[in-house]
Amino acid sequence: MKTVRSLYLLAAALAGMLAFTASIAQPADALPSWNDGASKASILAFVRSVTDKSSKDFVPPAQRIATFDNDGTLWAEQPLYFQLVFALDRVKALAPQHPEWKDKEPFASLLKGDLKGALAGGERAILEIVMATHAGMTTDEFDKVVRDWIATARHPKTRRRYTEMVYQPMLELLRFLRANAFKTFIVSGGGIEFMRPWTENVYGIPPEQVVGSSGKLKFELRDGKPVLVKMPGLDFIDDKAGKPVGIQQHIGRRPILAFGNSDGDLQMLQWTAAGGGARFMGIVHHTDAEREWAYDRKSPVGALDKALDEAQAKAWTVVDMKSDWKTVFPLGKK
Amino acid sequence: MKTVRSLYLLAAALAGMLAFTASIAQPADALPSWNDGASKASILAFVRSVTDKSSKDFVPPAQRIATFDNDGTLWAEQPLYFQLVFALDRVKALAPQHPEWKDKEPFASLLKGDLKGALAGGERAILEIVMATHAGMTTDEFDKVVRDWIATARHPKTRRRYTEMVYQPMLELLRFLRANAFKTFIVSGGGIEFMRPWTENVYGIPPEQVVGSSGKLKFELRDGKPVLVKMPGLDFIDDKAGKPVGIQQHIGRRPILAFGNSDGDLQMLQWTAAGGGARFMGIVHHTDAEREWAYDRKSPVGALDKALDEAQAKAWTVVDMKSDWKTVFPLGKK
Repeated sequence: MKTVRSLYLLAAALAGMLAFTASIAQPADALPSWNDGASKASILAFVRSVTDKSSKDFVPPAQRIATFDNDGTLWAEQPLYFQLVFALDRVKALAPQHPEWKDKEPFASLLKGDLKGALAGGERAILEIVMATHAGMTTDEFDKVVRDWIATARHPKTRRRYTEMVYQPMLELLRFLRANAFKTFIVSGGGIEFMRPWTENVYGIPPEQVVGSSGKLKFELRDGKPVLVKMPGLDFIDDKAGKPVGIQQHIGRRPILAFGNSDGDLQMLQWTAAGGGARFMGIVHHTDAEREWAYDRKSPVGALDKALDEAQAKAWTVVDMKSDWKTVFPLGKK
Repeated sequence: MKTVRSLYLLAAALAGMLAFTASIAQPADALPSWNDGASKASILAFVRSVTDKSSKDFVPPAQRIATFDNDGTLWAEQPLYFQLVFALDRVKALAPQHPEWKDKEPFASLLKGDLKGALAGGERAILEIVMATHAGMTTDEFDKVVRDWIATARHPKTRRRYTEMVYQPMLELLRFLRANAFKTFIVSGGGIEFMRPWTENVYGIPPEQVVGSSGKLKFELRDGKPVLVKMPGLDFIDDKAGKPVGIQQHIGRRPILAFGNSDGDLQMLQWTAAGGGARFMGIVHHTDAEREWAYDRKSPVGALDKALDEAQAKAWTVVDMKSDWKTVFPLGKK
């Protein structure tokens, strides 16, 4: 057995040496959809500093936690949050079972096609619409409803499927971080059960690494078979000051890298910034009216105002979509 | 470059072949502290069936979710939950700041050393004591308090540190599952912030894979520095019907293996059992009064009654601590 073991070790060492040689000889661009510039350079410098064992900023792999907002950071959010489009479709589908919605805002406005009226109630109203249309099913039933919708629905402007309106440069960033032993999480104001059915396929982020807003759940035995029923009440809003709370409850460690795009991400970025050692705080700034949308301080969806001021004051990385990204959406998909 | 690449692939293939030969030639016992018998055999058979690609029960690695209760399943829980011992120590330490505790149950009983009186209020009362003594600090401060206590406190009977009262056979099982690409989680009625500071070192389970009961958190800026403050209110009780809810909220997938030891784990085991394909439901039965403790149906701590009946009716694996385990606690530590 000793000979076999020695041969094995020799072969493994040889493989390791050759892999090392190959990686030096062929330094591939891990972020090909990013133009060379300050944003890309800041990402590369940060990852180098926390993964280089000789660096004073080295971080052990287990502590390489990266958190990403979803709407407007990993995929688009205009003209309105995609989950709200899903909820609208659900309101239409479920309206016959809810005659009371005809006289009850924001459902009444939605059913009349008046989006502005429905959105007037702000983010809390939006979340309430979402939860009301998401409740009353088991988690397995809801999972199927989401899978069916996401596989067929198309964006009103681009006609792409919603999962094809993810940002190619951010997909590359997620992969690059994981290749450097980061654990990548979503920390989104969106519904946790709306994201989980597709984030693994689309982003490579498994359900257990998705943090989001959630409704109450109830365990029941139905004819002896256990089910989890989605209840009407909101359980947790993972937005603004809720994001650091969601991070603590779900992850239990402070991220060393966080990426957002709106004021809803400010507290997550502050919480990330306040840790010791090297830190990376990034903001996707929507500046590209041609390839995507251009909006910030006054947008009804994804407003970026206070967080933009703080990013500039503290020299966080503000990604200028128009100049920093070679492509926005994945090519060849439509 | 082509030659280097080919050499690399050849070496890697050679290493792979030799590794295969070696693993056939030297089948190490992955569970050396388990006696040969039905329990060990059922674990080995289950892991073989879900990891063998040619098996009808094969489960892709990403879906190999295993959940473990903590108190009484991974470490001991007698004569009372270790977190309650911690809370007792905290009650004593914090009593000068809380004169009202002298007249308020269950604190009054605790301060008089009357454990039975304090425990009379049941699990909810226990959790309230825990939360009351755990609140008012920032999460960073609480983390330090736990680390200091766990590094110094000793069990009244064995005089071991509490982290040395973990079960050696279960440590081996956790490692064995991870070696087979399982993701191992704790799903405990215990406080999430009480477990996370030490589970990674002791069990190899990182904070983000710990699910537990939790208090409310509040994000605040203190002199411009963000903190998370532990508030008095309970946020979630991860026990009984709460366990499947905690699993869904934190993990978002149904486990294929679950291990518990008390009626508090029954719903988690039912939820696990109700999925499709091969399933493993295990219960640690405390039958060893000499090396550990013997208790089940009538125990004030960790009562095992309904879950024992259901385990027997449904042929779940009931581990008999006395006959199934060669050793209970890690050797050479005291």
